[in-house]
Amino acid sequence: MNTLDTIFSHRTIRKYKKDPIPEHILNDVLKAAVRTSTTGNMQVYSIIVTRDQQKKEALHKLHFSQQMVLDAPVLLTFCADFNRFNLWCEQRDALPGYDNFLSFFTASIDALIASQNSALAAEAHGLGICYLGTTTYQADKLVEFFNLPAGVVPVTTLVVGYPDEQPELTDRLPLEAVVHHETYQNYSPEKINQLYAEKEQLPLTKQLLEENQLDSLAKIFTEKRYTLKDNLHFSKVFMEVIEKQQFMNHSRTK
Amino acid sequence: MNTLDTIFSHRTIRKYKKDPIPEHILNDVLKAAVRTSTTGNMQVYSIIVTRDQQKKEALHKLHFSQQMVLDAPVLLTFCADFNRFNLWCEQRDALPGYDNFLSFFTASIDALIASQNSALAAEAHGLGICYLGTTTYQADKLVEFFNLPAGVVPVTTLVVGYPDEQPELTDRLPLEAVVHHETYQNYSPEKINQLYAEKEQLPLTKQLLEENQLDSLAKIFTEKRYTLKDNLHFSKVFMEVIEKQQFMNHSRTK
Repeated sequence: MNTLDTIFSHRTIRKYKKDPIPEHILNDVLKAAVRTSTTGNMQVYSIIVTRDQQKKEALHKLHFSQQMVLDAPVLLTFCADFNRFNLWCEQRDALPGYDNFLSFFTASIDALIASQNSALAAEAHGLGICYLGTTTYQADKLVEFFNLPAGVVPVTTLVVGYPDEQPELTDRLPLEAVVHHETYQNYSPEKINQLYAEKEQLPLTKQLLEENQLDSLAKIFTEKRYTLKDNLHFSKVFMEVIEKQQFMNHSRTK
Repeated sequence: MNTLDTIFSHRTIRKYKKDPIPEHILNDVLKAAVRTSTTGNMQVYSIIVTRDQQKKEALHKLHFSQQMVLDAPVLLTFCADFNRFNLWCEQRDALPGYDNFLSFFTASIDALIASQNSALAAEAHGLGICYLGTTTYQADKLVEFFNLPAGVVPVTTLVVGYPDEQPELTDRLPLEAVVHHETYQNYSPEKINQLYAEKEQLPLTKQLLEENQLDSLAKIFTEKRYTLKDNLHFSKVFMEVIEKQQFMNHSRTK
């Protein structure tokens, strides 16, 4: 499939057939990650492949019981990973200086852009994908579940499998909403109204407002989906994981 | 170009022709970003397009004077961006709860996976790309340069243009180095030796060791390229930017 067609026909898939992914196709999906650019070609990320049914059942619970986690044949958990690189340095008498926030973020960049290469390789093979935002919320439990050593933090998960639905393309804000030329153009109230108008008028939006008895789509985000209370809780959890996994070495950063 | 061919023929390009990118092709590169999955379809990222020669000269200095920043016709700076979403919420009487670390990381995920879609769309059009790791190092200066409001943090930059070199594919660790099945398999000393053997034997490695008068490739990373001292300095800078851009609201997180 043509690259631009793959990109422009992406839909997030939430219903999967139970069919397994042939080994050579899964291999392509993983090799695609490995060809991605990484910082200094250090490749400071790891991918954990889950296919075992019992493990999927456990991950299903960890990922807020989303049905697709059970149904899809493969989960790929992408981790920021300086552990392998640190071990190599230590074995070569080189002192690794990667137990800090910048290194965590560098490794996260590696992991995240690699995940999108895997997503597109999967889609090019006729597979569907869904990103799980729950990975950062449950990072503490995933560290335990996968037995992740210091230097390793899960940052995102891809659900991968053959689609059992054909959803329409999802709406997006107009291109001009996300693109700025030469400098950041802040948004006037009129511009905000204009950029969100189409989204606010969608039949899906109207349905959500009715179901939730709310008068604006924005409130569905702030009061139902991504609340301050949850965000503060999960910020604390995620920060603690970054610290526990030794990316915030205070004796050195202070 | 076929998706898998695009992915598997990726090379980072560091020498560019000065030829401009036709408008419809740049548009495809930007639209590719917009079709990427984002958390809750919130699209909490922005892309700043730099084409102006004076602006490129200033960015050239900020990105450690890498020549390609001057030569390539386009730079795309990807930012984690909750500003637009926050403004929309406020205009709709919804209280945004996105001034915290989780929201920063969520927005970074959106920005980073979108950047890889743009990278592949560019490569599918025969363009070359290079990711600039200096974006996080210089985030404080980039915030000022682009006039970024609270809620916006630059996380990566793509240099984009027509290649003026045809480098070989870069080496990668074997697939088994980054892939774990079912659980994280930590690395024995023998395994580390095995996984890094090919990289350590490359002619490029031998050349680097000679030039730097060092006895291991690992030391080139720890002593020359990514030192503890630099990492600690840039960790501090980047954390301060995240705080200054109001993603670490202490009164609420404590």
